[in-house]
Amino acid sequence: MSRSGKFIKAFISMFRSITCLKSFITVKLFIVLVLLLVSSRLTAQQSVEKWGMFEVVLKGSEAGNPYIGTTLSAVFHNGEKTYRTEGFYDGKGIYKIRFMPDLEGVWSYSIESNKSELNNQKGSFTCTASSGKNHGKVRVRNTYHFEYADGTPFYPFGTTIYEWPYQDATTKKQTLESLRKSPFNKARVLAIPPYKERYLNGPLKLTDFPFMGSSKADWDFSRFNPAYFKNLDSCIAHLQDLGIEADLILFRPYDKGKWGFDTMDEETNIRYLKYMIARYGAFRNIWWSLANENSFIKHLTDEDWDRLFQVIVKNDPHEHLRSIHNADRIYDYNKPWITHVSLQYYNAAKAQWGTPLLKDIYRKPVVHDEINYEGNIASRWGRISGEELTFRFWNAYIGGGYATHGESYVESPWISNGGRLTGTSPARINFLRKIVESGPQEGLEAIDHFYETNMAGKQGDFYLVYFGKEKLKEWPFILPKRGVTAGASYRAEIIDTWNMTIKPVKDVFELQPMKGDNYRFIDKNKKSIKLPGRPYMALRIRKVGGAEETSKEMKHELE
Amino acid sequence: MSRSGKFIKAFISMFRSITCLKSFITVKLFIVLVLLLVSSRLTAQQSVEKWGMFEVVLKGSEAGNPYIGTTLSAVFHNGEKTYRTEGFYDGKGIYKIRFMPDLEGVWSYSIESNKSELNNQKGSFTCTASSGKNHGKVRVRNTYHFEYADGTPFYPFGTTIYEWPYQDATTKKQTLESLRKSPFNKARVLAIPPYKERYLNGPLKLTDFPFMGSSKADWDFSRFNPAYFKNLDSCIAHLQDLGIEADLILFRPYDKGKWGFDTMDEETNIRYLKYMIARYGAFRNIWWSLANENSFIKHLTDEDWDRLFQVIVKNDPHEHLRSIHNADRIYDYNKPWITHVSLQYYNAAKAQWGTPLLKDIYRKPVVHDEINYEGNIASRWGRISGEELTFRFWNAYIGGGYATHGESYVESPWISNGGRLTGTSPARINFLRKIVESGPQEGLEAIDHFYETNMAGKQGDFYLVYFGKEKLKEWPFILPKRGVTAGASYRAEIIDTWNMTIKPVKDVFELQPMKGDNYRFIDKNKKSIKLPGRPYMALRIRKVGGAEETSKEMKHELE
Repeated sequence: MSRSGKFIKAFISMFRSITCLKSFITVKLFIVLVLLLVSSRLTAQQSVEKWGMFEVVLKGSEAGNPYIGTTLSAVFHNGEKTYRTEGFYDGKGIYKIRFMPDLEGVWSYSIESNKSELNNQKGSFTCTASSGKNHGKVRVRNTYHFEYADGTPFYPFGTTIYEWPYQDATTKKQTLESLRKSPFNKARVLAIPPYKERYLNGPLKLTDFPFMGSSKADWDFSRFNPAYFKNLDSCIAHLQDLGIEADLILFRPYDKGKWGFDTMDEETNIRYLKYMIARYGAFRNIWWSLANENSFIKHLTDEDWDRLFQVIVKNDPHEHLRSIHNADRIYDYNKPWITHVSLQYYNAAKAQWGTPLLKDIYRKPVVHDEINYEGNIASRWGRISGEELTFRFWNAYIGGGYATHGESYVESPWISNGGRLTGTSPARINFLRKIVESGPQEGLEAIDHFYETNMAGKQGDFYLVYFGKEKLKEWPFILPKRGVTAGASYRAEIIDTWNMTIKPVKDVFELQPMKGDNYRFIDKNKKSIKLPGRPYMALRIRKVGGAEETSKEMKHELE
Repeated sequence: MSRSGKFIKAFISMFRSITCLKSFITVKLFIVLVLLLVSSRLTAQQSVEKWGMFEVVLKGSEAGNPYIGTTLSAVFHNGEKTYRTEGFYDGKGIYKIRFMPDLEGVWSYSIESNKSELNNQKGSFTCTASSGKNHGKVRVRNTYHFEYADGTPFYPFGTTIYEWPYQDATTKKQTLESLRKSPFNKARVLAIPPYKERYLNGPLKLTDFPFMGSSKADWDFSRFNPAYFKNLDSCIAHLQDLGIEADLILFRPYDKGKWGFDTMDEETNIRYLKYMIARYGAFRNIWWSLANENSFIKHLTDEDWDRLFQVIVKNDPHEHLRSIHNADRIYDYNKPWITHVSLQYYNAAKAQWGTPLLKDIYRKPVVHDEINYEGNIASRWGRISGEELTFRFWNAYIGGGYATHGESYVESPWISNGGRLTGTSPARINFLRKIVESGPQEGLEAIDHFYETNMAGKQGDFYLVYFGKEKLKEWPFILPKRGVTAGASYRAEIIDTWNMTIKPVKDVFELQPMKGDNYRFIDKNKKSIKLPGRPYMALRIRKVGGAEETSKEMKHELE
C-alpha cells in the first residue's frame, strides 16, 4: 500500500495481455476487468514484457479540474536507463501513468505530483523478454528504412482508415477482420474524426468528443473526455494485436471551425498534445503523425508546427517516429525532429525516380502516405484504378521507399470507415509485399538511381526490374556494373505484377563487361529474356554463382 | 588629390563602358586605357550609370603582404541607402574598391584602412540613369521566377562553358561570338579551372593561377595572383556586354588535391571567397555559385558550406543570387541564404512534374543546372541526344522552372572550352525561349500541377500543353477549370518543338463545364485538335474572348 494509505491505489497491468486477446469482445471484458481491479485498490508489483505497456493506476481527488490543476509524472529507472514520462487524468478520480520498458530486468519508478496523495509513490516491476509478435517499436534503420527495436526489418505497407474508431461496433469488428487478412502493417487513423453529417445525427451520432461537452456551444477545452479516449485506446490496442503500426494523426483540418477542433489556440493544442503523448506514448505501435494535410489548418504556420513538434520531442520518452502529412504546403522534412517523410504527392509515385529524388533531398525514409485512392467517387483523388494504384506502389518500392493504400468506392468507403476491402489493389500489394520480403533484409535500394531508374535491390546480388507501363517483348540481360563481377551468373523470374504470377526463366545468365559501355555488364551470349508485351511486368534476378569478388565500385555516380 | 598627397591616387571608372564595347579587342584597349589613367594618378569625381561599376583605384604600399596585412573598405551613401564594401589588392601597390550603385543621384563614399596612406579618403560621384541593355542585377521575383532590378522579367536559358576563361584568345573570341548568336543568357563558368593535362603542357599551359606560384610545390596561398583575376575580370565583363549572367562557380572538386585548390583549409577558403566578392560583387551580372558538385569536395561538410555562405551574405552588399550545385549529396536549398535551386538531378527533368515537386519542396526558383549534356563522349552524362536534351528543357519550363544547356561532343567540347556550338539543341532552345517569352510576363506556372502535369501558363488566359514523347493523333479541347469561365473562347496553335514550326488551328473553341467532371471545361461541341502522331508536339492556347469574369478558383487542389 502507498504511504499516504488513503485514496491511493496503484494498479499495474501488462497491456501486452491485450495483444493476446483474440476478439473485440474479449478486449471489452478485459477493460471491465481492469476497472474492477482498480476499484479493488490493489497495489501489485508485477511484470511486463519488454516493449509491453506498464501502467500505474492511482486514485486521487476529483476536486477542481485535475486536467489542468494536477501535475503527475514518473521517473523509471533500470541500470543505465532513466526515462521520465507524464501521467494523465482518466476521469472519476483515476490517474494513470503508462510506460513502455525497453530493457529486461527490474525497473524502479518514483512518482511526482503537486498533489500529496499522488506524490512520492515508488514501486518497481520486472521486465521480461518479449514474446510472440512483439518486436518492439519501429525506428529508422540505415537512413532510408525501418526496423523494429529488436532489429527485425519493418517494411511499411500502409493503409488508410481515417474514421474507423468512430464507427459502429459491427463495422469496427469487420475492419479488424479485413485488416487481419490484408497485407497492411500500418494504418493511418485520425485521433479526432472529421465534421460530418453522419456524426451529428442518426445511428452514428457521436456522444463522446475529445473534450467535455456535446457541441461547439459547450466544449470545455480545459477538460478531456476519458470515454472518448478509452475507445481510441482499444482501437490502438487492437491494431497492435494485429501487428499493425498505428500512424496516429493528432491534428486535422476537417471541421473548418464547425466543431472547432481545428481552430483551437496554441495553449489548447499543446495541452491536447501532451495528453495524447501521456496516453498513447507507451503503445509500442504508435507513430506520431502530427497532422493530416497540415497546411489546410490555415491559422497554423510552419513555425507553429515546429513548436508543436518540440512538445513531442520533449514529452515522449519512447521516441516514437514523428512526421507530418502535407496538403498544399510541404513541411520541411529536413528538420531534425522529423524521422521520416510522410508525403502527400501523387505525382512523385508516377515514376520510379520520384522516390530516390525525395530520398536524396531529405536523407530519411520516404513513405508516400497518400498517392490517390482506388475508387469511383467524384473527387479525382479518389477515383484511380487498382492498376494505377498498384503501379504507383511498385514505383515507390522500386525507388527504395514505401507507400500507403486507400480505397474510396462509393459503395465501400474504406478510407473513411474501414469495413470491407473491395478493391483490386490489396491482393497485388500483398503480392508485392511478399516479393519485397524475398529481397535483401536491409530493404530495397535503387541500384544505380541516377540512370537505371527501374531497378532496385542489392548491387550484385538481387535485382527487381520493374517495367511499369512499358509493354516490352524482350529484355536484354544487362545489369549495372556496380557490385557485379565478370563471370558471375544469375537466374531470373518473370513477374506479372497485376496477374500475380512468377515464372522462372530457364536460362542462366553469365555476365561480362559490355563493350563500349563503361557502366554495364551483359550476358556473355547476349541473351534476352522474352516478355509478353503487357504492362506491369517485372523481373526478379538473383545471383546464383560466379566469382565471389565484386568489382570495385565506381567512384561516384555523377562522374 | 588625396590628403596624404603621396603614392595615393583615386581612379574612378565607369565599367559600364565595357558593356558598350563591341569586341574583344576594344575591351583590351579599354584595359590599357584604365592602366594609363591609373598611372596618371588622377582622382576624378565622375559619374557612373545605375548598376554600372564604380571603381576607386588607390596607390599604396607594396611592402609586406598587402593581401593579408592591409584592410580596406568603403562606405557608400546616397539618401537612405548605405552600403559597405570591401576593397582588394590588385598587385604592384594598386588597391581597388568596386561598387555597383543602385540609386540615381549623388553617392558619397568614405574609405577605411589600417594603412594611413589609404585611410580616410572621401569622395563622391553621380549615378545616372541606366541605359541600353542594362536592367540591373537579377533577383528573385514572385517566389519562383526572376527579374532584373528594373522589373524586367528574366527567364534563364543557361549554358555551360566551365573552362572558357582559360582557353586561347581565338577560342575565347569564338565562344563570345557563339554566345552572341545563341539563345543563352546565363553561363556557368569556373573561377578556377580543373586540373587537366592540357593546362600543364603545350599551347594552353597555364602560367597564371589564382595564387602566386607556378605549381603545387610553391603556391603561396596567402597571395592572390592579380594577372589571373584580370583575365577573369575581362571574361565576366564580356558576358555582361552580351547580356549574359555569369553564374560564377567559386569552388570545384576538379583537381583532387593535385593542385590543391580543392583541398584548401577554411582560412584560405574564406580569404579567397572574400577576395572574389570584393573583386566581382560590383559586376551586375554575377550570380554566386558557391560550388560545382560540392559534395565531391570530400573534406567539406554541409556545415562548412553553411559557413562559407555566411561569408557571402556578410560581405556582398549587392546581394547577388546565391546557390550551390550538388553532386551525390544535395545541399538543403531550404536554407534561408539560398536564393534559388541550382540542381544537378537529371531525372527530375524527365517528366513535367519533377520541377513542380522541387518548387513545392523548396518554394524558390528551380534552375536545372545540369540535366546531362548533348554529345557523344563515353561518359553517360555527356551523350544524350539533342532530342532528349530539348525534351528535358521543355519539361523544366512546363513545370515552371528553368534549365541549363551543355554540349559535350568529342570533336567540340563546348561545356569545357566553349568555342563552337555544334549540337542540335541550341536552335530548339532558342525556339522554346521565344515561346516562353510570348507567355505571361510573370513566367510560366503549372496550371493544375498535381493533376494536369503537362500544362503551364496562366490560368484562364494562356496555356502551353506539352506532349513530350507521346504520339497523339488528336487532343480533345479540355482545360482545367481554374480561371476559366463558361463561354470563354480560345484559339490554339500546334507547335512542333523539334521541327520548330507553329501552325494556327482554324477553329475557335468555346468552353463550358464538363459533365460528370468537377475539374474541367470542354469545348461546347466537343471539338478536338488533330495532331500528327509524332513526339515532341505542343499546343499554345490563348483566350480570345468570352465572359470576362473568371470562375471562382477551386479552394484547394488536394481536396
